[in-house]
Amino acid sequence: MEPSTSYCFPCNPPINIFSSETSSYSKDFNPMNPEDFRHKAHKAVDFIADYYKNVETYPVLSQVHPGYLTNLLPETPPDTPESFDTILRDVQNVIIPGVTHWQSPNFFAYFPATISSAAFVGEMLCTCFNVVAFDWLASPAATELEMVVMDWLATMLHLPKSFMFSGSGGGVLQSTTSESILCTLVAARDRVLDEIGVEHIAKLVVYGSDQTHSTYKKACKLAGIDPRNVRSIPTRVEDEFSLTPIVLQEVIKADLKKGLVPVYLCVTTGTTSTTAVDPIIELAKVASKYRMWVHVDAAYGGSACICPEYRHFLNGIEKVDSLSLSPHKWLLSYLDCCCLWMKNPNLIVGALSTNPEYLRNKHSESNSVVSYKDWQVGTGRRFKSLRLWFIIRSYGVKNLQNHIRADIQMAITFEQLVRSDVKFEIVVPRRFSLVCFRLKQFNGFDTKGIEFVNKKLLERVNSMDRVYLTHTVVGGIYMLRFAIGATLTEERHVISAWELIKEIANTMVNEHL
Amino acid sequence: MEPSTSYCFPCNPPINIFSSETSSYSKDFNPMNPEDFRHKAHKAVDFIADYYKNVETYPVLSQVHPGYLTNLLPETPPDTPESFDTILRDVQNVIIPGVTHWQSPNFFAYFPATISSAAFVGEMLCTCFNVVAFDWLASPAATELEMVVMDWLATMLHLPKSFMFSGSGGGVLQSTTSESILCTLVAARDRVLDEIGVEHIAKLVVYGSDQTHSTYKKACKLAGIDPRNVRSIPTRVEDEFSLTPIVLQEVIKADLKKGLVPVYLCVTTGTTSTTAVDPIIELAKVASKYRMWVHVDAAYGGSACICPEYRHFLNGIEKVDSLSLSPHKWLLSYLDCCCLWMKNPNLIVGALSTNPEYLRNKHSESNSVVSYKDWQVGTGRRFKSLRLWFIIRSYGVKNLQNHIRADIQMAITFEQLVRSDVKFEIVVPRRFSLVCFRLKQFNGFDTKGIEFVNKKLLERVNSMDRVYLTHTVVGGIYMLRFAIGATLTEERHVISAWELIKEIANTMVNEHL
Repeated sequence: MEPSTSYCFPCNPPINIFSSETSSYSKDFNPMNPEDFRHKAHKAVDFIADYYKNVETYPVLSQVHPGYLTNLLPETPPDTPESFDTILRDVQNVIIPGVTHWQSPNFFAYFPATISSAAFVGEMLCTCFNVVAFDWLASPAATELEMVVMDWLATMLHLPKSFMFSGSGGGVLQSTTSESILCTLVAARDRVLDEIGVEHIAKLVVYGSDQTHSTYKKACKLAGIDPRNVRSIPTRVEDEFSLTPIVLQEVIKADLKKGLVPVYLCVTTGTTSTTAVDPIIELAKVASKYRMWVHVDAAYGGSACICPEYRHFLNGIEKVDSLSLSPHKWLLSYLDCCCLWMKNPNLIVGALSTNPEYLRNKHSESNSVVSYKDWQVGTGRRFKSLRLWFIIRSYGVKNLQNHIRADIQMAITFEQLVRSDVKFEIVVPRRFSLVCFRLKQFNGFDTKGIEFVNKKLLERVNSMDRVYLTHTVVGGIYMLRFAIGATLTEERHVISAWELIKEIANTMVNEHL
Repeated sequence: MEPSTSYCFPCNPPINIFSSETSSYSKDFNPMNPEDFRHKAHKAVDFIADYYKNVETYPVLSQVHPGYLTNLLPETPPDTPESFDTILRDVQNVIIPGVTHWQSPNFFAYFPATISSAAFVGEMLCTCFNVVAFDWLASPAATELEMVVMDWLATMLHLPKSFMFSGSGGGVLQSTTSESILCTLVAARDRVLDEIGVEHIAKLVVYGSDQTHSTYKKACKLAGIDPRNVRSIPTRVEDEFSLTPIVLQEVIKADLKKGLVPVYLCVTTGTTSTTAVDPIIELAKVASKYRMWVHVDAAYGGSACICPEYRHFLNGIEKVDSLSLSPHKWLLSYLDCCCLWMKNPNLIVGALSTNPEYLRNKHSESNSVVSYKDWQVGTGRRFKSLRLWFIIRSYGVKNLQNHIRADIQMAITFEQLVRSDVKFEIVVPRRFSLVCFRLKQFNGFDTKGIEFVNKKLLERVNSMDRVYLTHTVVGGIYMLRFAIGATLTEERHVISAWELIKEIANTMVNEHL
């Protein structure tokens, strides 16, 4: 797997990065001439197609050192234009060496950031129109298409009508899970504060497990929840790191005794560390006793639920208040795209709406249309639904289901390979397309020792420039995460990655490390 | 100005929108085949170039009725693929009629959402890499290029070194002004709460004027500031609707007497209604007495400050804590792109950082690199700096300055045309490229009457399908806003728009309306 010839950095730094070659300075400056645009954008398309074709040849994890780019680029901006070809050449020679290639088929770190031709074109059109679709009139198509695709996706997930516009709820595209949690948390917070008085904000208490994504804590901080009232309920390996209803109940009771007011519970379908799945039905039952808002963060795992055989992970979803899922993780949509559905969008609108004179029009005043600016943090918003519309129409539900199945099948293959080697073990059951594994106790190592050799193994594997995977620590156990799902990954990449891991592990054993 | 022939909706609804024509169903589903991508993306480029070429021929403001698209599209997603050409044809026939064309040269509403060939290509590459650049290692180039362009733009604005990475501060790309205000407000809030205790959050009080953008109130709500403690200090026409330091001082003193704790002041450089400019030096002086965080929202007006002759609007910027500016408004960058600079990024990092095991690596642990995830609401983030890098290099600072000047020159032309007609008046002094004007008192109308005729005028002008402008009400005065700056706007569009406005006004006068 040799780097392509065009990859001439840092061994061969490109000559004349900032040459004096410039386009002629124009007095009639025209930044959007359609023919000039056509010419440059076609060049960019070829550049990008070639990138996807060659991405396998780059080291997955960037090999640069901190400050590499700061040192290469001038400290001050150019006064006069530089040519398009110069800049595009610098993308190849200066930027790409500093890119960690999430699109490499050998990228198995974190969770994948998936892509597709369809979504790319949808994104191009979103960029093209560049509408600021804060309300209906600012671009009716942007609001209505978002409503349509949110209902389509809800249909694919078999969500109840209470989450759909065609029922009594509705969905919105947020940027990130953080934003989804923040907005619903604020809606939940204000519902309670409206009853008990805003001065009691410091009494509010919110719940998640120690496996809930870190972004949840950030959202709580942003929303002004007292950090001492953000519960991270411990999970155990015996429960496969899922949140236990009985423990939740106990924690809530203790909080009530202290005079605190439970307000929000974040349930996870597919945690980041190990894809643990919290039991929605039982947790919602506990929460309902205390009239808490229940949010399901299905950022990663939710996508699998478009397949009937995995839909059970969302069983009980009709009992919760909101659900978020990020198609940029597993539904081919590119960043940033997080779907949020709510049973009662009026609560979020009540918490977030502003109605300044300069944005008023007869439609917004009539309340007959959705004003998405009141469903999110910002006022401005892009026409992002085009991406999902292109994906669903271009591929159809069946292909999207098969895409999920193919990734899970590759994970099963990897899992079997790990199991077939006595030196290794699967640490937690595989549910989706993430495999958590490690070198077992060997050579008489104790717990510390086994953590050390697994760290060493990860370091050596990643240092080969051929694959990239990451780690986690759950329940005190250090483990390697092998996340399958980069769009270009095929079975052969998974098998090669395993052979590399096995080979390095064997060397380590032989070295008596 | 006839609609183009391809614009066949709603008069000629396209036949077979959802025909049975489908691509063949593939078992080897491959959503990113580079050659398939190349083929489709080239088609999309031509579609988009043609859109920009023809955008002038579309009605600026969409003429559809609520529910138009919901009625046209099927309620459920397709099971099997539809062809690319079918979908692209639907963009033309189904989506475009529902688009309010912010890119039309006849779009004078709100503030412009500017575009450029350079930024489009930058955005394509951002999409292409699709890195999740939450920290340095996740893509070093994404973090470092953002640091470089934030310093470049700071240099263009003559910001002090205290806002730059090359000095003691730093900048970050946020999505929206809301996010910039929210994050800095939370940093300011927590700085104070660390001293007085989080249980005192309900005592915090924040300040802006009645002209501060509505998004400020939303950010305060999100951050858990008691809505009763969000001050909208009244402004007056005599002060050109800018916030008066002496009034601020009085309001603060009254709050202190009540036992409240001043924490944050939002100053605006170019308000949304009338582009009023708050006096930074004097306001910062008042705020400093109470150790408040001062943020400058220069979302629109800030871009003009890259020209030496307008830089004075930011005089005193060295006295404040943070500054935000949205290049998607006036610096050709497409949405969403809001620059935020801070003197003390550690405060935002302290408020927002989370450090989960699964995101740890030796670089993030060493604190030697910037982890932008701790500077924003979300964890995930895109490689958005590519857009600004392409813009600044492709055009150079001089062209960008001339671009600002050309827009302001067109606004001066429009202002002169308004002034040349005795029926009209300029309501507030023009500062940038927005002109606020109205029909003067005539035909013996009182205040209510003149508001009525101006509303009527706006309605009639917009109903012609040829231009789109909006209104505001400030200090009780209803006025029309003519915002120049859509990238494709030339002087001839401004003159035509004026002639249309004048013609309709004349008709109204003749009708004795």
